[in-house]
Amino acid sequence: MTQPRLLHIAATNPDPRVWHAAFIDALQRLGSLTVIRNGQALGSGEIADRVRECTIYLSSWGSVALPDSLAVDRGSLEYVCHVNGTIRKFIPESLIEAGLPVTNWGDALARDVAEGAVTLLLSCSKDLPRRIDHIRAGGWREDGRYRGWQLEGLRLGLYGCGRIGRAFVELISPFRPCMLAYDPYCDALPEGVRRVDSLEELFGNADAIAIHAGLSEETRNTVTAALLAMLPDHGVIVNTSRGAIVDQQALFAELASGRLRAGLDVLEPDYLAPDHPARQWPNVIFGAHDIGNPRPWPATLMRMHRHCLDNIRRHLDGRPKRFVMDARRLARST
Amino acid sequence: MTQPRLLHIAATNPDPRVWHAAFIDALQRLGSLTVIRNGQALGSGEIADRVRECTIYLSSWGSVALPDSLAVDRGSLEYVCHVNGTIRKFIPESLIEAGLPVTNWGDALARDVAEGAVTLLLSCSKDLPRRIDHIRAGGWREDGRYRGWQLEGLRLGLYGCGRIGRAFVELISPFRPCMLAYDPYCDALPEGVRRVDSLEELFGNADAIAIHAGLSEETRNTVTAALLAMLPDHGVIVNTSRGAIVDQQALFAELASGRLRAGLDVLEPDYLAPDHPARQWPNVIFGAHDIGNPRPWPATLMRMHRHCLDNIRRHLDGRPKRFVMDARRLARST
Repeated sequence: MTQPRLLHIAATNPDPRVWHAAFIDALQRLGSLTVIRNGQALGSGEIADRVRECTIYLSSWGSVALPDSLAVDRGSLEYVCHVNGTIRKFIPESLIEAGLPVTNWGDALARDVAEGAVTLLLSCSKDLPRRIDHIRAGGWREDGRYRGWQLEGLRLGLYGCGRIGRAFVELISPFRPCMLAYDPYCDALPEGVRRVDSLEELFGNADAIAIHAGLSEETRNTVTAALLAMLPDHGVIVNTSRGAIVDQQALFAELASGRLRAGLDVLEPDYLAPDHPARQWPNVIFGAHDIGNPRPWPATLMRMHRHCLDNIRRHLDGRPKRFVMDARRLARST
Repeated sequence: MTQPRLLHIAATNPDPRVWHAAFIDALQRLGSLTVIRNGQALGSGEIADRVRECTIYLSSWGSVALPDSLAVDRGSLEYVCHVNGTIRKFIPESLIEAGLPVTNWGDALARDVAEGAVTLLLSCSKDLPRRIDHIRAGGWREDGRYRGWQLEGLRLGLYGCGRIGRAFVELISPFRPCMLAYDPYCDALPEGVRRVDSLEELFGNADAIAIHAGLSEETRNTVTAALLAMLPDHGVIVNTSRGAIVDQQALFAELASGRLRAGLDVLEPDYLAPDHPARQWPNVIFGAHDIGNPRPWPATLMRMHRHCLDNIRRHLDGRPKRFVMDARRLARST
């Protein structure tokens, strides 16, 4: 029996958070592994040729983009295992439409992102940056400058209740907020979460909103000025999903005025200029798309690696793979 | 039937967090209520005389101290209902020893304090002040300056597992830390918490410590330099209990060096001078004994009021009261 050929093509260097020694060792026990550096120097024809020669192609953060031509002729390629989450940048939709099996990390980071979202919700609700500023400036006890909301009884609206949203509910439930969720694609909401049928109903009945929807054409720019205006004073927005779901200009206007509070792990674009005034706002905590990431990344296998290795084993054994991407799932994914 | 006479003597003005209109209304439905302002102008003999004339005395934050002489002659006084937690400042031990029933708010604030402790643990573990500083200074993604620990798998040591400790465990359990507890007075630890038999064992096996013990002669100054030295680099101390449990000089040395991180709602004494350098440390979040308090205090009945009113009704009906203080409980209480 010939060994399966595993291939990864990094645009420059393989991302060290994914491609560390323990992961490479584990892959080498499953097949013959080739890792190509500086793939950005290859033409798309050359990339396609290399990919056609492998059995399983592994993409990850920092991969080259696969060419559309693989949809027509995939050679010996059987399966594309994307180690991370977002695949749009790396794998064209045409490959999925052509029936090539593609998986991603599924729920590997759901709990980590949810833990980041809970951190932002608690820290914003208790006005942590204002407290820190107040104490650094020589103040001590509260003097009307900040408000520390309790989560118990807080009306908490979830925009999206997929894998991350459900992990968030699991973490936040013991704090006993009153939870509402808007998610037309989630058939069974977790216990204790009441369904609403529109974003208007969600924002009109919430003190705080946690965004856990994927970014798609359906969700882009849906958190509008009108919805934000429905939140009460000191209302909280937590976004650990994608910045483009929110009308950022409208949100920043509410934050600049000091009316709302926010914990924003993501922005659109996902960065602020060094001199952007928002960096100094005391009612916002920015996560730099990093609040859910463990630091330092441990050099041991993480859940993303374990999911990847498990799916490669499933493929080699002919068992069903997990977190397979199809057109319907892709349409709702970030 | 004569109406029970309810009395409160404030040292200056009644504390508005306790003595707002809704609470006063509710008490007036249970008996005739007298509230004396500026009780600090009264002599202790005069205070004793007034208290001897009432049926139920209500003490709270901002009360005068009751005189020892009530232990010998309590007149018509049947019961002292302390609306808040710590009673030492307000009610002498001699009254409890003389058999006068005294209650406090029991677990009324346990969940609020526990929510504050979780906020501090998450914020410290994710290095929130350093992240905020980094972004305000023009940085963005992590650059080795901070570390964001995940709670999953974190070795979390609980020093004390009474009412607040158990509420903390309820909130933190879904994050899946590995929990150890040291509490010689807690017979049954919550599920998932492993008992250790010494503080050495606790600190020697933990990445983070949450202090939920009461302050007593047994616990004073027990978190020593030697114990703190057992924690790993970047280890986290969360204290929402009492500052005097910790050797503060030793803790501040570990924090000034940047080796440990801490979320400190309490200090000994419970304040820092405006120019104290600790106020600027990026590895500490100070709560000013306020992190668990809801702001603004709602003008509706809170759990402390409901516990108080319930106990007064129980007393008037001859039913057993909750949260009765006895010498054993007092010895372990803050």
